[in-house]
This record gives sequence, C-alpha cells and structure tokens, in this order.
Amino acid sequence: MKPLIALLLITVVAITSSAQKIDYDKKLKELGIELITPAKPVANYVKAVRTGNLLYLSGDGPTLANGQYITGKLGFDLTIEQGYEAAKQTGISILSTLKAELGDLNKVKRIVKVLGMVNSASTFTDQPKVINGFSDLMVAVFGEKGKHARSAVGMAALPSNIAVEIEIIVEVE
Amino acid sequence: MKPLIALLLITVVAITSSAQKIDYDKKLKELGIELITPAKPVANYVKAVRTGNLLYLSGDGPTLANGQYITGKLGFDLTIEQGYEAAKQTGISILSTLKAELGDLNKVKRIVKVLGMVNSASTFTDQPKVINGFSDLMVAVFGEKGKHARSAVGMAALPSNIAVEIEIIVEVE
Amino acid sequence: MKPLIALLLITVVAITSSAQKIDYDKKLKELGIELITPAKPVANYVKAVRTGNLLYLSGDGPTLANGQYITGKLGFDLTIEQGYEAAKQTGISILSTLKAELGDLNKVKRIVKVLGMVNSASTFTDQPKVINGFSDLMVAVFGEKGKHARSAVGMAALPSNIAVEIEIIVEVE
Repeated sequence: MKPLIALLLITVVAITSSAQKIDYDKKLKELGIELITPAKPVANYVKAVRTGNLLYLSGDGPTLANGQYITGKLGFDLTIEQGYEAAKQTGISILSTLKAELGDLNKVKRIVKVLGMVNSASTFTDQPKVINGFSDLMVAVFGEKGKHARSAVGMAALPSNIAVEIEIIVEVE
Repeated sequence: MKPLIALLLITVVAITSSAQKIDYDKKLKELGIELITPAKPVANYVKAVRTGNLLYLSGDGPTLANGQYITGKLGFDLTIEQGYEAAKQTGISILSTLKAELGDLNKVKRIVKVLGMVNSASTFTDQPKVINGFSDLMVAVFGEKGKHARSAVGMAALPSNIAVEIEIIVEVE
Repeated sequence: MKPLIALLLITVVAITSSAQKIDYDKKLKELGIELITPAKPVANYVKAVRTGNLLYLSGDGPTLANGQYITGKLGFDLTIEQGYEAAKQTGISILSTLKAELGDLNKVKRIVKVLGMVNSASTFTDQPKVINGFSDLMVAVFGEKGKHARSAVGMAALPSNIAVEIEIIVEVE
C-alpha cells in the first residue's frame, strides 16, 4: 500500500470511530436518568467479573438514589406499572455499576444476555411486561447494542423482598 | 510435502467432514419432529445473541404449531408426563429458533448449558423428570454434541402460565 | 537477549509459578473439608461442559458423604444457619466435581459466576445469608480467585426438595 493511501485510510477510520463515540453523560441526562452510587457487596462476592471480553454482573435490584429498594411482590403488592418502574430502576443501578466497572459506557459492545427475575405471586403471569422496564431502558441508552437475549420469570421470593432482580452478561471492549 | 500426498490428504479430510454433515431435515422427520415458525419477540429484546462462538438464546416455552402454549403448573394442573411433553415441545421451539438463526443445524457444535425452569407448585420436586423431555430430545437430535450441563428448578410463576421455560447457550461454528 | 539473562529469567518464572501451585489436598484438610464422590447424572446431561476456557457446571445440591441430601424450605423447615450449612455442603459437592473434571484444583483460574438458588417460602428474604455458605467456602479455598459475581434468589421448589441448588461458571487453564 502506498504511504499516502495508508494515511488516508487511517484518517477515515479515526474519524469514523470518533464519530461513534457517544456522550453518554449527555444522553442519560436527556433521558432523565441519574446514575446512583452502586452499593458494595457486603459478603464474599463482587459486583462483576470479567473473563475474556465478557463481563458477568452480579444480580442487581431496584436501588433508589437514597439507597433504599423498591420492594413487594407482583400480583400481590405491586401493579405491572410499578413493576415496570422497578425493572427500570434496576437498569439504572446496573448502568451505574457498568460505569463504575468500565469507566466509560462506550466500552459496552453488546448487552448479550439478561435474566429478569420478578418477585411473583404464584398466579402472576406478566413477567415480560415488568422486565420491559429494563429492556426499554437498555435500548434507549445503547440502541441496537442494547438488544439482548432474555428470560423473564417468576421467583417465589427475592432478597429483602425486592420487586425485581436482574443479572446480565455484557460484551465489552 | 509432496503434491500427491497433499492432494490425498485434502481428499481424505473432505470426505471425512462431508461424512460428518448430517441431514437434519431427514433426522427430524424420522424422529417425528416438525419445526414451528418461531414467534418474534414483541418487546425490546431478540431471540438470540452471538458473542464469539457462543450463541445465547432467550428463554423459550412450549409453543405449539398453532401458536398456542402448553400452560399449567406442575404438581397442580399437570402430570409429570404432561410436563415432559411440554419440555419436549419447548425443545422443538428452540430447535426451530436455532434453525432460523443458524440456517443449518450442522453449525451446532455443542449444547453447552441449559437452565430448565418448571412452573411448579411449592410441593413439586420432580423438575428433572420434566426437563428430561428437553434433554432427551437434544441427545436424540445431536447425539454426543447434545449432552449439556443443566439445572432443572421450580419457578413460582412463568409468563402466560406456560408449563416450562428453557434458556440455553450453544457453541456454534 | 543474552543467553545468561534468558536463563535467569526462565528460572525466576519457573520458581514463581511453582510457588503459586497450591497443595489443595492439604488446604482442604486444614479447612476440615472432605470431598465426596460426585453422583453421576442419571439422565441425558453431564456434570460439566467446557467451551473455550470456560467450564459450565450443572446445578448441584447439598449432597452429603453418604449420598443423601440436605432437604427443606427456608422460612419454613430450615433456619438461616441450616441453609448456610446446606450452601457450604453444595460447595463441597461442587469442589468434588471440579476436582473430578479438572484433575487438579490448581487449574481453576477464577470462579466467574454463581447462581445461588434457595428453596424458599414466599416470605423468606434472606437468600444472600444462605448463599454466603457457598461464597465463604470458595474464598477460603481459592482466595481472590474465588471471588465471583453472583445472584442469590428464592425458588418455589427444587428437585428432591433440596435446600439449595447452585450452578457456576469457572474460568479454567
């Protein structure tokens, strides 16, 4: 390859990839999302483990900015709308963890897999409508990279009676 | 290496790998399995995400050819035999998704991991006998490549009251 | 690089990595841990599947040395302390499987991800305190390499009414 062509090519690649850098602070602000300070695990586990280019996150719940949780069982204490909000809040907590772990949300290449666990009465069957609160947020923030494989299922009980617990796998740079 | 030996070697390799190609359409027919048209996700998620050579599938249920589901709770509405059939039907749905995603089931190198979630009364303890309906199908179709690590567990509730939900990870070519 | 320097370097690396080899038989003895003979799966699945450098283990329960299980539902039959012991015993069963699969526990590079499923009454909300029995054991045995991402959640029911079922992903050499 001639030096000039090589230089041009490098320039084009540099411009393209810099154009793909997203100002996530701005984007989150536009979406009305305020990140929280992720709570540290109090036991012998960690918030995230990376192996190769996959980041495995610990299950997370709907932690509010004041450190409290959204609690209750769907089909018993909470409406679908309240469940949707709890799943969205869990998403905010997970975004906060991703930011803390990666430094920059631009390092997220793909939300690969989501296990959405809904605190459910045995008669509640709308887990997908609840977990949509999480999925909608991921796609609002990351676009196509936010589209994931997922399961949305009903748990007999969750820690501290949180309404939702979600664990995810992320492909990272 | 001499040209003639190289040619012979290439021929042997070609024959061997062509011999390993399985006519899955024929095999499924022999097993009496008819694939279905996988339903498209109606929310912000997708049926499958590939990262490296791993394919993560969304949780799937016992969808019938007519688009309806096998519903009910084990230990309450359904017998173990009905649960086994529901798990097998979930397997057919998952095979249909794999075919749609990969084009050719020969691209399946290994069924790696299975999470088999059974809609369970709190007193039902035969989840493995239910999920065997899925595992038996995978081994009938894929042989040794179909043998997977698995968990078979009891859920308080599942979407639309489906009897079984299964999510899997597949190593692909 | 001069030959002498190269030789010195190789020697240093060899000493360092041999120093990192841990006598796990001795360590387990010091911890009072006795491995068991892992039960063989009786159906069409296997104890573990390796893909790349990840080992996916099947869900395991609190199998005792005599082959029996610790059974019961948290918040109903069992105290948190009994649940902690069940999670620890599940850890012993999983260590036994790892030993059998890998030959040598030194091949464990990292406990990556843990899904801790607790057989729970719908009102039980201390799943993390139960699964700590597993997490504490992993860190006692593997140190920093034992620290994992985890979820600790409540199941409606588990096979044979076991108190705890845990599935893990391990990065291996």
